[in-house]
Amino acid sequence: MNKKTIRIVPLGGLGEVGKNMMVYEYEGEILIVDAGLMFPDSDMLGVDYIIPDFDYVLSRRDQVRGIVITHGHEDHIGALHHVLAEVQAPIYATPLTRGLLEVKLARNGALAKADLHTVQAGETAQIGPFQVEFFHVCHSIPDSIGLGIQTPAGLVVHTGDYKFDHTPVDNWPTDFAKLAEFSQRGVLALLADSTNAERAGWTPSERVVDAALDQVFREAQGRIILASFASLVSRMQQVANAAQRYGRKMCFVGTSMVDNAKMARKLGYLDIPDNLLVTIDQALNLPEKQVVIMCTGSQGEPSSILGRLSTGRYRQFDIQSGDTVVLSSHPIPGNEENVYRTINRLFQRGANVLYEGIAAVHVSGHASQEEMKLMINLVRPKFFVPIHGELRQLKQHALLGTQLGIPTENIRVVENGQVIELSEAGLRLAERVPGGYVFVDGSGVGDVTPALMRERESLANDGVMFVHLVLDARSGRLLDAPEIVTRGFMLNADLEDLLEQARQRVEQAVDSANGSLEKDVEKAVRTFFYNELQRAPMIFVSASRV
Amino acid sequence: MNKKTIRIVPLGGLGEVGKNMMVYEYEGEILIVDAGLMFPDSDMLGVDYIIPDFDYVLSRRDQVRGIVITHGHEDHIGALHHVLAEVQAPIYATPLTRGLLEVKLARNGALAKADLHTVQAGETAQIGPFQVEFFHVCHSIPDSIGLGIQTPAGLVVHTGDYKFDHTPVDNWPTDFAKLAEFSQRGVLALLADSTNAERAGWTPSERVVDAALDQVFREAQGRIILASFASLVSRMQQVANAAQRYGRKMCFVGTSMVDNAKMARKLGYLDIPDNLLVTIDQALNLPEKQVVIMCTGSQGEPSSILGRLSTGRYRQFDIQSGDTVVLSSHPIPGNEENVYRTINRLFQRGANVLYEGIAAVHVSGHASQEEMKLMINLVRPKFFVPIHGELRQLKQHALLGTQLGIPTENIRVVENGQVIELSEAGLRLAERVPGGYVFVDGSGVGDVTPALMRERESLANDGVMFVHLVLDARSGRLLDAPEIVTRGFMLNADLEDLLEQARQRVEQAVDSANGSLEKDVEKAVRTFFYNELQRAPMIFVSASRV
Repeated sequence: MNKKTIRIVPLGGLGEVGKNMMVYEYEGEILIVDAGLMFPDSDMLGVDYIIPDFDYVLSRRDQVRGIVITHGHEDHIGALHHVLAEVQAPIYATPLTRGLLEVKLARNGALAKADLHTVQAGETAQIGPFQVEFFHVCHSIPDSIGLGIQTPAGLVVHTGDYKFDHTPVDNWPTDFAKLAEFSQRGVLALLADSTNAERAGWTPSERVVDAALDQVFREAQGRIILASFASLVSRMQQVANAAQRYGRKMCFVGTSMVDNAKMARKLGYLDIPDNLLVTIDQALNLPEKQVVIMCTGSQGEPSSILGRLSTGRYRQFDIQSGDTVVLSSHPIPGNEENVYRTINRLFQRGANVLYEGIAAVHVSGHASQEEMKLMINLVRPKFFVPIHGELRQLKQHALLGTQLGIPTENIRVVENGQVIELSEAGLRLAERVPGGYVFVDGSGVGDVTPALMRERESLANDGVMFVHLVLDARSGRLLDAPEIVTRGFMLNADLEDLLEQARQRVEQAVDSANGSLEKDVEKAVRTFFYNELQRAPMIFVSASRV
Repeated sequence: MNKKTIRIVPLGGLGEVGKNMMVYEYEGEILIVDAGLMFPDSDMLGVDYIIPDFDYVLSRRDQVRGIVITHGHEDHIGALHHVLAEVQAPIYATPLTRGLLEVKLARNGALAKADLHTVQAGETAQIGPFQVEFFHVCHSIPDSIGLGIQTPAGLVVHTGDYKFDHTPVDNWPTDFAKLAEFSQRGVLALLADSTNAERAGWTPSERVVDAALDQVFREAQGRIILASFASLVSRMQQVANAAQRYGRKMCFVGTSMVDNAKMARKLGYLDIPDNLLVTIDQALNLPEKQVVIMCTGSQGEPSSILGRLSTGRYRQFDIQSGDTVVLSSHPIPGNEENVYRTINRLFQRGANVLYEGIAAVHVSGHASQEEMKLMINLVRPKFFVPIHGELRQLKQHALLGTQLGIPTENIRVVENGQVIELSEAGLRLAERVPGGYVFVDGSGVGDVTPALMRERESLANDGVMFVHLVLDARSGRLLDAPEIVTRGFMLNADLEDLLEQARQRVEQAVDSANGSLEKDVEKAVRTFFYNELQRAPMIFVSASRV
């Protein structure tokens, strides 16, 4: 029996939906699969986005032999420029993924140093000790791949995000034959996408969106405004097809969407004739029934184009009665409030709004339970590790594996940072390495810590109060009335009387202080406001002694 | 033709899910239906809950002839003690609703002054100029009612929250006969619950939960811990029935759940034999297969019992491997993150977790589209006003009305504060009155304004920085180094160098100030930190001149 052991180090995506990043390692040589970002929960205050903690890679940066990106979504590419700032290694991606990467890296000033290699599904690349076979999978973006990784310990199948769509928009189904071939060769381990593990049945084909869009185009009496992700290239094609059928001109707005559409047309992933496209200025001058506008903002982001349209703050045009607005996406968990608020506001402005809840204008890009079972049965792995999902989804996926007869001891549900050692003999949990969140806020990476987050939460819930004292250095007496400034606590107009009383308490506390003056003053102020209002702002006392 | 006109003044629940409150008015005399609260969105920082703006009632407080509460959920009763602090009027409620009201009002010190009247479904009360007939409806809480309000203008049917459950847990279906009778008498207007207007088909019967619970009890090898709302009396009964079938003792934990269960048993709404119930201490000493614990926390509230169990901070016991935890509820929009985080944490602690997404352990208490159609066709109203829902849900409900043949001009979708004048001749939109949010924070009601909320949001996103200067009153020179204090901006350990540089900028700004010293200093600090970090904290500069 082959006793060689590889290490699998999940740095992101196991225990969460987002920031996918996986390390495969053999005798110190490393292959990285994906480097994505995650959007913050609503209580992660002031955080722009989150990237994996890739400390494990940093301390082995000379051992990275390559980075494979499975597809061009943010949760697979969004942290790449942070990785490239520290690690030099060739990057492998299919043409469309590479195109999306180039747009993204250029925006972050990281394109020049990126060593990009185009690969095609069906090809194989030798990356360090790993022979990586790229196979086509369907997902909500074209040109997605999974990986068959021939390692010294055996064959590992890493699905990436996938679904089994028999009628995808680009007519290129998931590569069943390759999966069956892997099975014949013998698969040591399967690492498979768990995002929809709670969803029974099959995920509908992207094709059902065609029928829904057809109805939208048939019935709309005015302009159609369709919002989606900037990377949803197949949705762009579907909208373009409907626009052609119904005699509407199409207009992309928003930098990322315009850039991606341009790149995808150039690479041949989008088949849109020149005469179908118009600029926004041309679109606004056409009769309303002859226009469809495609933009970003389907997650209700307030600063997106749809977000600004919903509040009347978009520079180029306003929503008007008769507009049909389509949100062609599923709210990412945590975005529901923003999405529904945006929908309500669009209704208030007179638009007819269509969205996933009431029309089939979006389908998931991830496999549901029956597809997960099919994947497991096609591949027949010896060991099974669910990836890409919150713990609840990984657990459900593991349960499916058990139901299909994989012995419980051959299935491992692990979260980020839990190193797995895998050989033909078995699958063993090794040490834990850092696998937490790295928050990106402004230009700062990682300097927003949980402690700072708690401080922000406390500020937000109760406000803050600063008390400054000017004291005579010798006598310790106040030289001036105490300065009390509050923010987020109460509006100052309501506070005047209370502040006057609080200043008196401060003066009393200064007069009677023994021990730490600042602490005594803080306690006096805290007690006073809690008694008056049952609120506990963060209080900070400082003193100048002159 | 009867030309008498009534006024319908929606103060809450139209344009949102929650804080339901409706005013019916004829010649100055007022009937109030419900007075509920709403839980804050995640960006309403530091707000405990939201109540309707009932300014309209306050300026007519002597004209209120009665308050009818349709059922005992927080979104129908939670603002009542705030109303009673200002308004004296008899309150009408069915026995269970009254029991829940008494528990709630007692907790808020408002029970003594509440003039409570028990009514039964089927009875009629004369409330000012309104003859109000209470009819039974099914909902996720027993003893819910809708209202047939005979007004001087005609008969108005106000459904309250309802569903058409043919096999409810208490075997008491919605009163079809009464609805048909209303129809025979002729219904001027229907005001009906829109919560599930986006959901096709029929809402499943509460009875399907029985089958799911049966499976849970059959398969659980250890303790069962079931979380739900404290007011979900029918779920308590279902759990008790399953406990009896499977030889487990039942234990309620948490004050509100214990109080409500006690009251419901006393009033005969819960049929649980004494020997089935044990205290938590007894429960923890029984063999694990002989216990089911029922508690609150199904919305993932961090301070609830389930929330504390998920983080290991519950005083009385810990989650252990082998526990089965059931979340028997649907996440209220905005709570998804907390709910799923709690589920993941419970899995991490070794529990098997069952929840709506993967088992039928909860059903909605609100009518779906086919039930809404049935309601409209049973009642055949002349005019139709969807209530209880966000704008998107009110719009969908209106669309159903149109599909059933109600003329578009007889349907009105309005939001809170839009007064409707209704007579046999027509339905007219009159003036707008205040209908916004009133935030409750600590003991403060209404003093958290949108401006203050924006201040808190800004604090939370970027932190705050206070700069204090001590100046010589005559020369204007600094007497001490500038004091700079930050919170929520960066951890102080990371800041030292930057703060030293910032202090130098402040000193330069003081030296070169012309015009407003404080503004010049603020600008210098803002520019410095933005250039260094691309972050813009709230900055406040004050000066003592001594």
